Amino acid sequence: MTTRSDCEALDAIDPLAPIRDRFALPDRVIYLDGNSLGALPRHVPQRLAEVVERQWGVDRIRSWNVHGWTDLPLRVGERIARLIGAEPGHVLAADTTSINAYKAIDAARRLRPDRRAIVTDTSNFPTDVYVMRGIADDAGLDLRIVEPDAVVDALDKSVAVVALTEVDYRTGRRHDMAGITSAAHEVGALAVWDLAHSAGAFPVALDDVGADFAIGCGYKYLNGGPGAPAFIYVSPNHRGSFRNPITGWFGHAAPFEFSLEFVPAEGISRARVGTPHVLGLVALDAALDVFDEVDMGYVRAKSLALTDVFMDLVGGWMEVATPRDPERRGSQVSLRHTHAFPIVQALIAHGVVGDFRTPDIARFGFAPLYVRYVDVWDAAAALRKVIESGEWKDPQFLVRGEVT
Amino acid sequence: MTTRSDCEALDAIDPLAPIRDRFALPDRVIYLDGNSLGALPRHVPQRLAEVVERQWGVDRIRSWNVHGWTDLPLRVGERIARLIGAEPGHVLAADTTSINAYKAIDAARRLRPDRRAIVTDTSNFPTDVYVMRGIADDAGLDLRIVEPDAVVDALDKSVAVVALTEVDYRTGRRHDMAGITSAAHEVGALAVWDLAHSAGAFPVALDDVGADFAIGCGYKYLNGGPGAPAFIYVSPNHRGSFRNPITGWFGHAAPFEFSLEFVPAEGISRARVGTPHVLGLVALDAALDVFDEVDMGYVRAKSLALTDVFMDLVGGWMEVATPRDPERRGSQVSLRHTHAFPIVQALIAHGVVGDFRTPDIARFGFAPLYVRYVDVWDAAAALRKVIESGEWKDPQFLVRGEVT
Repeated sequence: MTTRSDCEALDAIDPLAPIRDRFALPDRVIYLDGNSLGALPRHVPQRLAEVVERQWGVDRIRSWNVHGWTDLPLRVGERIARLIGAEPGHVLAADTTSINAYKAIDAARRLRPDRRAIVTDTSNFPTDVYVMRGIADDAGLDLRIVEPDAVVDALDKSVAVVALTEVDYRTGRRHDMAGITSAAHEVGALAVWDLAHSAGAFPVALDDVGADFAIGCGYKYLNGGPGAPAFIYVSPNHRGSFRNPITGWFGHAAPFEFSLEFVPAEGISRARVGTPHVLGLVALDAALDVFDEVDMGYVRAKSLALTDVFMDLVGGWMEVATPRDPERRGSQVSLRHTHAFPIVQALIAHGVVGDFRTPDIARFGFAPLYVRYVDVWDAAAALRKVIESGEWKDPQFLVRGEVT
Repeated sequence: MTTRSDCEALDAIDPLAPIRDRFALPDRVIYLDGNSLGALPRHVPQRLAEVVERQWGVDRIRSWNVHGWTDLPLRVGERIARLIGAEPGHVLAADTTSINAYKAIDAARRLRPDRRAIVTDTSNFPTDVYVMRGIADDAGLDLRIVEPDAVVDALDKSVAVVALTEVDYRTGRRHDMAGITSAAHEVGALAVWDLAHSAGAFPVALDDVGADFAIGCGYKYLNGGPGAPAFIYVSPNHRGSFRNPITGWFGHAAPFEFSLEFVPAEGISRARVGTPHVLGLVALDAALDVFDEVDMGYVRAKSLALTDVFMDLVGGWMEVATPRDPERRGSQVSLRHTHAFPIVQALIAHGVVGDFRTPDIARFGFAPLYVRYVDVWDAAAALRKVIESGEWKDPQFLVRGEVT
């Protein structure tokens, strides 16, 4: 069994150890919720303050040009593209994940107008499913929600789109993106991938697997801050043919000609809608600086090592919901327990921050950029203490709040 | 003719004069572009820094509850509600104006499923028209784009929705919101109003006029910062019946139950889609503090006085595109000139910041919270100098950039 000294030794040789110092993380908290809200990179406040005080406060309207606010969604998109295996020019940072899901899934189903179904699975994040339900109802399509293992079998020539989240937000189970995308293409369907728990956690290869559309979140492993702009990827194959259902001025070929006729922009700009959320984009842009210094292959290796250690340490006395196979999991470990809610609350009282997902999941995200091996060991030890002492039964830990 | 001394005297007794000090405005710049990007309220950077450093950086995920991030769109919406004549509970701050236009206009046309047309006018801001075009194409409706004076005549029983921007972004001409809304209701149509150039510039009375839906911008007269979240209003009449076309998790009755079945929230929360853009909302929320100290009736009185003075001073030698009738204009004055573009650039070189709108409009916004009477006088004098000297003909002023 891994000892705390083993963990200290692993931290001592971890090439990502200096990266942790780029983040604001108090010594006494073990933050295992970066899969919900990424920690603050220390340099972000200064960058944001400069934009607010100098660009907004002094240069004001000129900043749209001189500070490049207008194209921020494209520039930030380029930086995310590298992390998810996309060539430049196919990723945009804008709006929310839910809105991008709407754009992507609706665009995909329009590219298969002769098909009658959308397929997803029960492990998908609810907002994706809600968005699909709305699209399906409007377009008169069937929405087929199957078990995660039944997705490939559900694909046939009636299917326009299969839309899935790569990593299950509850269990951390990772789908076979290449295999499912390939199976979708074999029957002529398109594949839309939600990378909410993938981008920034491990390398993604959208172009290589031939994904048609992808979306993802800016505030989890990308550390862009609360409610950061999300992203959307459109495959080079659909660049000239996709339709954004929300035809706003920034998706126009020439937004500043103020014509009353809508002419869609070429390429990824077509996925734009309204005026960019500059403050959110600036924070996300700054946060992405950290990724310039890291190799995503190593990020993945460390993520697997961290989650392996945690599963080794707790697997004997807790039910692990996350697959052990490295190919089949993301960067989180989920434990199943009838009393997961108060257990998570009791752990938080010990300074170990994970989160609860209904009905019975205690979820721990291991953001490889700032989680240490000793954090893993200490978290497992704290969990053991909470379980063995029964202290989670204290009524204070039953008070429900809402956590995103 | 008003003299500069007259203007100094008006400033000396202006109840809004102290409000100007709340904004970051260098002495040597006359900023008449607050209708495009509102000036920075001085206290915003500190408030934003607190949220970034303390709430994101230290409290992290807990902030969704303890700092109320989850309900920020509702709380900020409440503050805007007061400025636009809405009862509490009917305004939400979220997303972009374009996306809110999509939600509002699509929701409105669904409430009149037996009708076949959407009506707008040629003075509407292009993004609204583009959004309507997309909705009309998808739903198989006619989009009728008429001249501003022909809107009421275009309303008949085939019309599902009339959607207009109250104040023309080019000329500053203000529509008769009460009259048009009433005419729409007479034929059974719904009225959707874009308040981009209204909210924060003068009192709006949405509930009183019976508007069905409204949308507007957070970064113009509300001073919420570049790309600030926009807002959406849903009339109490449609509270329980409207459908948001983008069915995201924050529009769910119980988003944190993570059910796979979509059950729309009651009331204005139904207009929500994804995770709130916290940083943008915090800046907008802080900016709205300034409005707590002002009476919107007086804001309007000052706006009319400022624009009157400007039109008096320039009307003899420039073509004024803005109606003189106070009932028929917003808080801007637009001048028409074949060479409006280089004239605006030359003025900017004199420290007078207005903007150009294609093809021939020089546009000057008089944000009553921080524009002084002497600014009006000095701007008019600078314009006269630019015109009489012909200095605008200098080739440097012909370089085009893009300005939002």
